[in-house]
Amino acid sequence: MTTGVRRRLGVEERRQQLIGVALELFSRRSPDEVSIDEIASAAGISRPLVYHYFPGKLSLYEAALQRAADDLAARFVEPHEGPLGARLLRVMGRYFDFVDEHGPGFSALMRGGPAVGSSTTNALVDSVRQAAYVQILSHLGVTDPPARLELVVRSWISLAESTALIWLDGRRIPRAELESQLVHDFAALASVSAAYDQEMGALLRRIFKEEPADGPFADLAGRLLTLAT
Amino acid sequence: MTTGVRRRLGVEERRQQLIGVALELFSRRSPDEVSIDEIASAAGISRPLVYHYFPGKLSLYEAALQRAADDLAARFVEPHEGPLGARLLRVMGRYFDFVDEHGPGFSALMRGGPAVGSSTTNALVDSVRQAAYVQILSHLGVTDPPARLELVVRSWISLAESTALIWLDGRRIPRAELESQLVHDFAALASVSAAYDQEMGALLRRIFKEEPADGPFADLAGRLLTLAT
Repeated sequence: MTTGVRRRLGVEERRQQLIGVALELFSRRSPDEVSIDEIASAAGISRPLVYHYFPGKLSLYEAALQRAADDLAARFVEPHEGPLGARLLRVMGRYFDFVDEHGPGFSALMRGGPAVGSSTTNALVDSVRQAAYVQILSHLGVTDPPARLELVVRSWISLAESTALIWLDGRRIPRAELESQLVHDFAALASVSAAYDQEMGALLRRIFKEEPADGPFADLAGRLLTLAT
Repeated sequence: MTTGVRRRLGVEERRQQLIGVALELFSRRSPDEVSIDEIASAAGISRPLVYHYFPGKLSLYEAALQRAADDLAARFVEPHEGPLGARLLRVMGRYFDFVDEHGPGFSALMRGGPAVGSSTTNALVDSVRQAAYVQILSHLGVTDPPARLELVVRSWISLAESTALIWLDGRRIPRAELESQLVHDFAALASVSAAYDQEMGALLRRIFKEEPADGPFADLAGRLLTLAT
């Protein structure tokens, strides 16, 4: 015999529990394959009770996505200490942890489609990109970025997304290699831009000159030189 | 006095004319801002007649997008002659022509959202990406790409998309600079990958060794060396 005592959850507590259960289901499979019945069952409550807290699957999906977006944005925060390359590498590690934990849901969201594409979900995805952009600029020590720097940072963020999506599709390349490669990709894209523009060149020289000789940026230069000879 | 003779269009001819008119409107503004009334008026026919040819705005939008996708895919086709860097640069010129001609519609589509995101539109976007991927592999002379080459090519295609989208948002960088930069970005991303993997290194050396000393790839190496010193 059990005591039969099951604590009743308060409204906000129940909502948060439901969001957590839903996020886990939406992460593990494409969201359009997850039903309200399944969420209710996983949360141990009835289907009507789910609707008591959320008017429909889309609003529950959006709440779950909001939590995932907050979680991901928090992983971009990195102390302003030590070499830049090493900081970015740590962020990449946490980014791929996130991608790994939410694989199928991340793919479905980023590949778009009617089940996951609403103006709210698009705004959430954009808010995460913006959080990444703001973090990177703050680490570069830039408050008023020239157009070319904005392009490098924003297009690199999209490169990180597509690299993660391609990785998820079969995981044929070790993720540690991709994390490190994305740090090098950033340096490479910034260098290409600097090769066209004096302002970018000066900015990069200032940034890279503080990088250690054994850090990832110097490592890239060494690897590229080996290739070229 | 005019002759008053106005040739009546056949069914398929009328459909094609409507698609052309719709594509032009969907290109110049965000598709959700374009009404069937406006398309009817631009085509010089009545609203009911539009519905006679297309059941609704989505099907007309999808038909217009199909035509745009075919047009874009055709611009990727480039003779297998001369240096690779120069070929890619010509393709980039035609790609930015397309982006320029279809600016607002291209942005709305690629940024996603309920008005433009259907499984058909997503499949069309993917088919264009796939056409670009196949073309690039054929120019590289590779039929069975290793995972790292697939990653480089596909992630570069997404970089080209995001670069075009950022360019459209204010056009603050001359497009000729971006076209040339994307060719260099391809070389840079491939080089980073080659710095990690022997197979990629061998592949790149084979490809780059046929590039002329005054071509865009050699130009990049020179620019980067200047930066580093």
